[in-house]
Amino acid sequence: MTVKRRRPGRPAGSTDTRTVVVAAAREEFAEHGYDAATIRGIARRAGVDPALVHHYLGSKEQIFVAAMDLPFEPGAALPEVLAPGLDGLGERVTRFFFSVWEDPARRAPFLAMLRSAMTHERAAAMLRQFVMRALLARIAAELDLPDRELRLEAAAGQLVGVALLRYVVRVEPLASADVELVVALVAPVVQRYLSEDGQLA
Amino acid sequence: MTVKRRRPGRPAGSTDTRTVVVAAAREEFAEHGYDAATIRGIARRAGVDPALVHHYLGSKEQIFVAAMDLPFEPGAALPEVLAPGLDGLGERVTRFFFSVWEDPARRAPFLAMLRSAMTHERAAAMLRQFVMRALLARIAAELDLPDRELRLEAAAGQLVGVALLRYVVRVEPLASADVELVVALVAPVVQRYLSEDGQLA
Repeated sequence: MTVKRRRPGRPAGSTDTRTVVVAAAREEFAEHGYDAATIRGIARRAGVDPALVHHYLGSKEQIFVAAMDLPFEPGAALPEVLAPGLDGLGERVTRFFFSVWEDPARRAPFLAMLRSAMTHERAAAMLRQFVMRALLARIAAELDLPDRELRLEAAAGQLVGVALLRYVVRVEPLASADVELVVALVAPVVQRYLSEDGQLA
Repeated sequence: MTVKRRRPGRPAGSTDTRTVVVAAAREEFAEHGYDAATIRGIARRAGVDPALVHHYLGSKEQIFVAAMDLPFEPGAALPEVLAPGLDGLGERVTRFFFSVWEDPARRAPFLAMLRSAMTHERAAAMLRQFVMRALLARIAAELDLPDRELRLEAAAGQLVGVALLRYVVRVEPLASADVELVVALVAPVVQRYLSEDGQLA
């Protein structure tokens, strides 16, 4: 493979090299999982210098987002969702989650990851590690609660489960319900998990 | 195919005919979905009399349970879960759900159905129809609430989503948490969905 050095000022990702690096990243993540995958390993597969991997794709999380074809960087949306504080957090998280899933093009890569996770242990490990590192650990850091990881995962289960029944299995009336009704239904539960008042026995 | 008439008193399902009928049922359900599948269609595929299908497998729900290799008849457990009334219903439903999923052998067929539903529209339709007819509609009939189907589906989403994260994606600490802690975490949410006090906006 030949790597052409791009001219400065050209937008990142406009050459074939980016495609090759993304494909290499996809293989590296699939083989080693999110945690054990390395920039060096991706570079070796792509036959390029590790610096070039960073140059084209950025951080490990950004590389993963590109490799999995995710429609956005989940971690990037977090500050905005978290910043206003605990008050209304459940609704902001729920609204953000469904804003992504409402769009078939944006939910497709998440569905693909979930599908793979259901059949391949390696894909499950990759999804698990990514979700924990990029999302849950960062939200947990903002919460001052006992069992916060467990609560966050129960909240994530609520969101993922409703998404599964609404968009994949398509049970009615959930599948056809206005998304605002779904948010009104689910947001208080998410808020409850993130708040002290939802006591564990 | 030759069908040997079983001697009276022999336990149902001990002959090859049952295997053939179960396989035929699996095909019929896969091709037509739960609602449109017929005993007559199953009998035709198996090359036996429709009465024999009933004889070997029973009702349509029982045939489905056999065809999908489900470890029990979900509808059969409902009266016991529902009978004591709304008080504690969330906990009984949650405890029953996780008692099935805790056992790898018992959760396997449910996982298989969920996997198929995620990749095949026909399998999704089958799962959807079965879950609605055999489970949700019967629980809904016991509830006197506005939006009861929607609430039930949100509760089902909570249970399925947590099961997915605990048993398939295996996020920690959820995956290793004592099942009693998981029940304590999730049951109040299920109860809330089934009660008037969880108001919709």
